[in-house]
Amino acid sequence: MLPALLFAVAAAAVPPEIARNLVGSALTDGVAYARLRDLTDTIGPRLSGSPGAEAAVQWALKTMQKDGLAARLEPVKVPHWVRGEESGEILPSSSAVGHRLALTALGNAVGGSATAEVVEARSVAEVAALGDSARGKIVFFNHTMTTPEGYGQFVDMRTRGPSAAARVGAVAVLLRSLATASLRSPHTGMTSYAPDAPRIPAAAISTEDADLLHRLLQRGPVRVRLSLGCRMLPDADSANVVADVRGRERPEEVVLIGAHLDSWDLGTGANDDGAGVVMVMEAGRLVASLPQRPRRTLRVVLFMNEENGLAGGKAYAAAHQGELAEHVAALEADSGAGRPVSIRLRAGEGGAALLAPWLAPLETMGLRLENGDAGGADLGPMEPASVPLVMVHPDGTHYFDIHHSAADTLDKIDPTELAKNAAAIAVVAWSLAEMPEVLPRPPRRPPRESEPAAPRPAAH
Amino acid sequence: MLPALLFAVAAAAVPPEIARNLVGSALTDGVAYARLRDLTDTIGPRLSGSPGAEAAVQWALKTMQKDGLAARLEPVKVPHWVRGEESGEILPSSSAVGHRLALTALGNAVGGSATAEVVEARSVAEVAALGDSARGKIVFFNHTMTTPEGYGQFVDMRTRGPSAAARVGAVAVLLRSLATASLRSPHTGMTSYAPDAPRIPAAAISTEDADLLHRLLQRGPVRVRLSLGCRMLPDADSANVVADVRGRERPEEVVLIGAHLDSWDLGTGANDDGAGVVMVMEAGRLVASLPQRPRRTLRVVLFMNEENGLAGGKAYAAAHQGELAEHVAALEADSGAGRPVSIRLRAGEGGAALLAPWLAPLETMGLRLENGDAGGADLGPMEPASVPLVMVHPDGTHYFDIHHSAADTLDKIDPTELAKNAAAIAVVAWSLAEMPEVLPRPPRRPPRESEPAAPRPAAH
Repeated sequence: MLPALLFAVAAAAVPPEIARNLVGSALTDGVAYARLRDLTDTIGPRLSGSPGAEAAVQWALKTMQKDGLAARLEPVKVPHWVRGEESGEILPSSSAVGHRLALTALGNAVGGSATAEVVEARSVAEVAALGDSARGKIVFFNHTMTTPEGYGQFVDMRTRGPSAAARVGAVAVLLRSLATASLRSPHTGMTSYAPDAPRIPAAAISTEDADLLHRLLQRGPVRVRLSLGCRMLPDADSANVVADVRGRERPEEVVLIGAHLDSWDLGTGANDDGAGVVMVMEAGRLVASLPQRPRRTLRVVLFMNEENGLAGGKAYAAAHQGELAEHVAALEADSGAGRPVSIRLRAGEGGAALLAPWLAPLETMGLRLENGDAGGADLGPMEPASVPLVMVHPDGTHYFDIHHSAADTLDKIDPTELAKNAAAIAVVAWSLAEMPEVLPRPPRRPPRESEPAAPRPAAH
Repeated sequence: MLPALLFAVAAAAVPPEIARNLVGSALTDGVAYARLRDLTDTIGPRLSGSPGAEAAVQWALKTMQKDGLAARLEPVKVPHWVRGEESGEILPSSSAVGHRLALTALGNAVGGSATAEVVEARSVAEVAALGDSARGKIVFFNHTMTTPEGYGQFVDMRTRGPSAAARVGAVAVLLRSLATASLRSPHTGMTSYAPDAPRIPAAAISTEDADLLHRLLQRGPVRVRLSLGCRMLPDADSANVVADVRGRERPEEVVLIGAHLDSWDLGTGANDDGAGVVMVMEAGRLVASLPQRPRRTLRVVLFMNEENGLAGGKAYAAAHQGELAEHVAALEADSGAGRPVSIRLRAGEGGAALLAPWLAPLETMGLRLENGDAGGADLGPMEPASVPLVMVHPDGTHYFDIHHSAADTLDKIDPTELAKNAAAIAVVAWSLAEMPEVLPRPPRRPPRESEPAAPRPAAH
């Protein structure tokens, strides 16, 4: 937290009429929520390669053009995975009846059927150590996630678990859903097969079913049948939607605000990431509607394929490689639409002191700038350029209640909090595009274990 | 609430060693929870007529015999309804894509398929008034249930709605689930066709889907396709399980403690009503294990078919018609296993003053006797005998989060609260069986609109 003094000395950085305009409009127009309703009700799920994803691209392009932004499509080849029918059951045994499993395939998983005994593992390392005792079995990854922090702790079971299990001869994987609430609700999410392991079917089961499986395993051997109809089709043509409010003085300098347009297929992706999409669209619309364009270019980027491949993030970084040195800041809104609680900045030394005065208009909404982790999966591929990263950080207490599940629907979004997030992003984005100075760039992050679309720092 | 004085003057009514024994055992043995785990994990769902229901009957019979109770089966003919495959979708329209519906057939509903335009109604009365505008349509019953109290307010849409819709020519019914929480979870429950109306398919949809349907109807006509594979088979042979701890002085006087052994088929019926079953079994076991039997007979009755017919309650009342005058009190545990908050008594004038001193050992657990509504669906058929009714009333805040849904599973039960409920029932039951006086009988209830298995006073 910066000393309050910083706000006091330079509170006039954002002209009051600009602050009033951006925040007042976001909080009263209802545009962001109305757009989220249109997106989720009339377009629905938007998994890469699906008709919904394509419809969303066209919708976003036309909407932002109408808003007065210079909007265009940038082509992206995306994976095209389809779910198909899926079912599973715990088979009857000498000690218990059978039970239907509430399950759903992990994204990008291969389909197939398996009927086999189940062996429980509590980590990727543990399954690797199972050795021959896992041969021919279904590996059940169980864990103790109860809070949002558990996601980062256990997500490797989803991404790397199936290949780890396949290496020791397992025929399929069941994963306890990565979730903080459940009403028998399985939560999907991408898995990532390693090149050196057979590709085996993999599905998430609800936490209730995981508890049941764990208890039944205390009684004796348990056999499960599962059948997944999912499959990967040839890559599809899709696009990022990129829309500029061209800067009046330094148009080559870009402030990027992004979100991802694709969603999982089970719900309508209201929270992940429809909310982020309409927030950044709203910030773009409001900045574009001001009497004067900001000093730099404000660019709204709606990425395609964050969920199961990150093709959009990679394509953007590749297509704009030559301009990334002039990307002066980037923000991704992909953490839901909970009450905004802070603004986080990852910049070089002195960056926070430069930006903080500009954010004084957000103080009444309880938002202060803090140094911290910021970013977003789609911004990962531009990391070599060390772009300063900023995020409006919403309360994430209930984010994983619905994350990647059929319950990610419009009713979970509070229109007031959505509007506050949009307002905050608008002020942050305008400030970054207008402030005379450029934020110092942060040091490179230490290289991390390679994980496609790893959930850092915002969950995805 | 009675004055605390009553406890003080006669606090010795229950001998301390009995109170210690009953409460201490219930709170430390873990027997009730272990049995609930066995029932739900190894037997599973127990809808009337199903193999699970039959297995539960045999399990309960043998378990209570082992506990030292005189347990036997009393035959009951029950409806045998099976669910089959079910699916539904909102069809694409000119204004929106299609959406899969999270739905489940109402219990006892006829199967069938329908594809038709949807018309929304907010009450049974409203649909009756729709007249010809509902002809050939699917009636969508929407409502505003957000708290447990809403169940009693809106359940007639489920019980009577389908026939009301059929009378105005509707071809099917969709009901917004009667629920206080949802993660895209449909909640079933019995519907009841009237003899004068065609029987049309009827299903519950999740509250999320109801919200979506409502929103889409604001945009224009909406068509839905649904297909329900449910059907009613011929009545099946089943049984109530009746188990006595025979009274030492007045064995013909009966204190009945009951619960229902059947459950809906979607979950494992841990809350509804596995919890009640193991509570009253535990009270029976603990009373049977005391050095001396109580003065009167304590009878544990596990009713069959509470959920979709009440055949067990009716059969018990019919078979025991001649003894109901000597049923001195009855309790049904069918309100879940939330923290017990009070003991409710419905007896004649002066009844509470007689019973209250006996319940002093429960005061430390925060439980006081209050006059109030008490009963249970299975006790309804014995209402003409004006048996005094008592209940241990658990907190019901989250009861309808999982009620009649796939999420009614063991993990929702807090073992500590389950044990406290069992302890309280044991003390109440022993006291009623031991106290020298007999409670005065309450006045007859005014006759109420005939609704099979109406949800009064405990939800079911």
